[in-house]
Amino acid sequence: MTKFQGLLEMEDIKVATAGVPLLADALSDQLVALTRVDWRPAVPGSQAALDRVMADVRRTSANSLALTRMLATGAQLVDVRQASEALNLETRTFLHAGPPLTWENASGPMRGALIGGVIFEGYADNPEAAEKLLASGGIKWEPCHHRNAVGPMAGVVTPSMWMFELLDPSTGNHSWCSLNEGLGKVLRYGAYSDDVIVRLQWMTEVLGPLLKTAVKRRNASAAGPVDVKAILSQMIQMGDEGHNRNRAGTLMLIRDLLPDMIESGASTTDLATATRFIGGNDHFFLNLAMPACKLQTMAARDIPGSSVVTVMARNGTDFGIQVSGTGDKWFTAPADTPVGLFLGSYTEADANPDIGDSAIAETAGIGGFSMAAAPAIVRFVGGSVPDALAATRRMYEITVGENQSFGIPVLEFRGAPTGIDVTRVIRTGILPQINTGMAGRLAGIGQVGAGLVNPPMACFEGAITGLAEASPQVG
Amino acid sequence: MTKFQGLLEMEDIKVATAGVPLLADALSDQLVALTRVDWRPAVPGSQAALDRVMADVRRTSANSLALTRMLATGAQLVDVRQASEALNLETRTFLHAGPPLTWENASGPMRGALIGGVIFEGYADNPEAAEKLLASGGIKWEPCHHRNAVGPMAGVVTPSMWMFELLDPSTGNHSWCSLNEGLGKVLRYGAYSDDVIVRLQWMTEVLGPLLKTAVKRRNASAAGPVDVKAILSQMIQMGDEGHNRNRAGTLMLIRDLLPDMIESGASTTDLATATRFIGGNDHFFLNLAMPACKLQTMAARDIPGSSVVTVMARNGTDFGIQVSGTGDKWFTAPADTPVGLFLGSYTEADANPDIGDSAIAETAGIGGFSMAAAPAIVRFVGGSVPDALAATRRMYEITVGENQSFGIPVLEFRGAPTGIDVTRVIRTGILPQINTGMAGRLAGIGQVGAGLVNPPMACFEGAITGLAEASPQVG
Repeated sequence: MTKFQGLLEMEDIKVATAGVPLLADALSDQLVALTRVDWRPAVPGSQAALDRVMADVRRTSANSLALTRMLATGAQLVDVRQASEALNLETRTFLHAGPPLTWENASGPMRGALIGGVIFEGYADNPEAAEKLLASGGIKWEPCHHRNAVGPMAGVVTPSMWMFELLDPSTGNHSWCSLNEGLGKVLRYGAYSDDVIVRLQWMTEVLGPLLKTAVKRRNASAAGPVDVKAILSQMIQMGDEGHNRNRAGTLMLIRDLLPDMIESGASTTDLATATRFIGGNDHFFLNLAMPACKLQTMAARDIPGSSVVTVMARNGTDFGIQVSGTGDKWFTAPADTPVGLFLGSYTEADANPDIGDSAIAETAGIGGFSMAAAPAIVRFVGGSVPDALAATRRMYEITVGENQSFGIPVLEFRGAPTGIDVTRVIRTGILPQINTGMAGRLAGIGQVGAGLVNPPMACFEGAITGLAEASPQVG
Repeated sequence: MTKFQGLLEMEDIKVATAGVPLLADALSDQLVALTRVDWRPAVPGSQAALDRVMADVRRTSANSLALTRMLATGAQLVDVRQASEALNLETRTFLHAGPPLTWENASGPMRGALIGGVIFEGYADNPEAAEKLLASGGIKWEPCHHRNAVGPMAGVVTPSMWMFELLDPSTGNHSWCSLNEGLGKVLRYGAYSDDVIVRLQWMTEVLGPLLKTAVKRRNASAAGPVDVKAILSQMIQMGDEGHNRNRAGTLMLIRDLLPDMIESGASTTDLATATRFIGGNDHFFLNLAMPACKLQTMAARDIPGSSVVTVMARNGTDFGIQVSGTGDKWFTAPADTPVGLFLGSYTEADANPDIGDSAIAETAGIGGFSMAAAPAIVRFVGGSVPDALAATRRMYEITVGENQSFGIPVLEFRGAPTGIDVTRVIRTGILPQINTGMAGRLAGIGQVGAGLVNPPMACFEGAITGLAEASPQVG
């Protein structure tokens, strides 16, 4: 009792309480003034690893360096090139979203997109033959992230597809993403019907070359390359969050590229068709927002001792994350299924588990992390406006800093919560908030809705263990 | 005392207090529960007129009808025509913003814009000659509103200028506005230097005809006319308030008109120049938002007994309003000077009093009334984000209803406060909130800033008297 001797004789006792409310309530009933602290025990089973990572003397400065590097990145649209050339994607090699996967454990929409890719490339001329080829090892595939690319939903990239190529001037890094096909029945949602293939062919023959010419003209002009990061900054002030709302972004891209598209020498018909296609698809800019976010998180890669997340990605079966301090190691767990709003007559039963590299948006602090900037998104992904504001506020609890380039107007221009810290996720039990599209569970269906989802906690449990193993021996 | 006999013996007394806090504070000190009502006496001197208007049995249903008609309006872009043809604007006849005015009482920017108009039309070839012509009665002018047109800032319209022509399908009404010239040194801010005139000539020779062809093509297509009201609805969800922020609106207009501009047969050079001009001016859509708002308020005109404001407009000297129940009668008073943020080295001393028909935006429930939808605007007009939210909330106190077509996301999609009621302004003392551009006080300068302003209360005092005079005799 020596330790607390005299405590109750003190005149000015201040009480702070944490955990279960029983004691706080008892004091409160006796009119004792107290401050309740919102503390929770760490995620069960991870305390030892957490302790070790928290004791790593490198952690604070490593995370600070990760944040500094992320905030310093830019993103310029420097080229549009075919994947075979831009990514050295060999014949019969595909990329896909999320962590690595096999044909056997691939979900319906992932299988559908791979089948569509085989037909599009002409490696088979019908779905049955394509499936046979895929199941027999006739096609190789690996994650987009392994080549610094990102792909929305199934994220299947084949050698002929045109890719946006982005440059981060602060690091010299490049990242890539395919061109957005629109909504509904599209390859990335697992559809592979004739109209899907015909659209992909038009994008390959007309849209890609037209965009390439416009981008090259623009780069050579006094205006210089389209500044994708500047568009992202503006979007956040225009009701977009950069993941499921890219309306203002798409419109600004049209504005920026348009004069050079007009002067590209393309035929009036191709120009009018291309502008109608881009203007008719509010999500077109997503495929520029994603590689810009990839550049931001790439900059934070491979810092020893840093517990900042650099990748969150889903392949439709598993959710995988990568962490700065553990390099390219994937920490995976079965993906959850989003909850949200459904198109037409689709229901929860039609939805595939979480899929796509688009959670790179949240990894960089936009998307679900900046929902407060885009309250109208609740009409697309579900939830209420107060929920959207609360989601952003909650994300400040698990991030290492704020990005003033993405100032959220309604929060008085507070910067987007940036840099998910594995230790904060484990300590608070708060999971990153992701806005996402929902693919149909079966191959060939396409989009069934959009909603909200979290990564499985097991990814972060794996990551804290991985960080603990990589930390210096203590004592 | 009979009246209050037994009052103090009652067991369940409920106290409501209003006015000065002295009595309420005294009761509060004695722990008496009470409800404080935010009541203020009516604007001094207007009580008798207010009483008479409040006693007008037609008022409630007349205001309800005014609201219903306003909410039912649409706004389609049906043509682009020169003012001489669209408005029968005769040679040597100009339109201007706000209520009627003479050369003698015209402000610097209004004189500058009239001088520029004379030079642009070739009625004189230098400013001195133009001024002489204007001062000697060689040019006639009248308010834009007298021909169902609206003009931002000085709002000078000359016969050769191209006008957007909008149609409200619900009433068959048309309204008009000129094409936006951009910011800085432009005619509407009172500048008339050579570059201003050259730009106006290019707009007359190239931009107007190009837009006309595109609009005609678009109207004949399956898509039908550009739906300006639908763009306004979307803008309110994209951080625009339709008066000083028209970024998303401008981008959506480009998107909607672009394919038909491309297919208009215009030369590549003209097309590229036009898209650069429109894309480089975030305010281009203002000149479509304004006539759309004019159509909305026109629908509420001339309803006997209605105390709803149908016009708020400033000519740079006077602020004038019109009210449904008093028809085309102007109630005017000297305009105040906006308070806000200045461009470059300009200061308050450089600012002209409030000018322009653009307060038609607030008359229709957007602009300052919907600032909560556009928190980023505080970086342009001044004030804080909480101020912007509070301004919108305050406007519900003086309006007759809410417009669900303009749902404000952060207020959980509450409709924009719509239909300013003169009786509510007089009863509460709350003045309409206007966001506006600021013109330089001297002719020839151009824009010096942007800020916040209110109409003078005297306009509403005049209006309540006018309404009282138009009300049926009572008793």
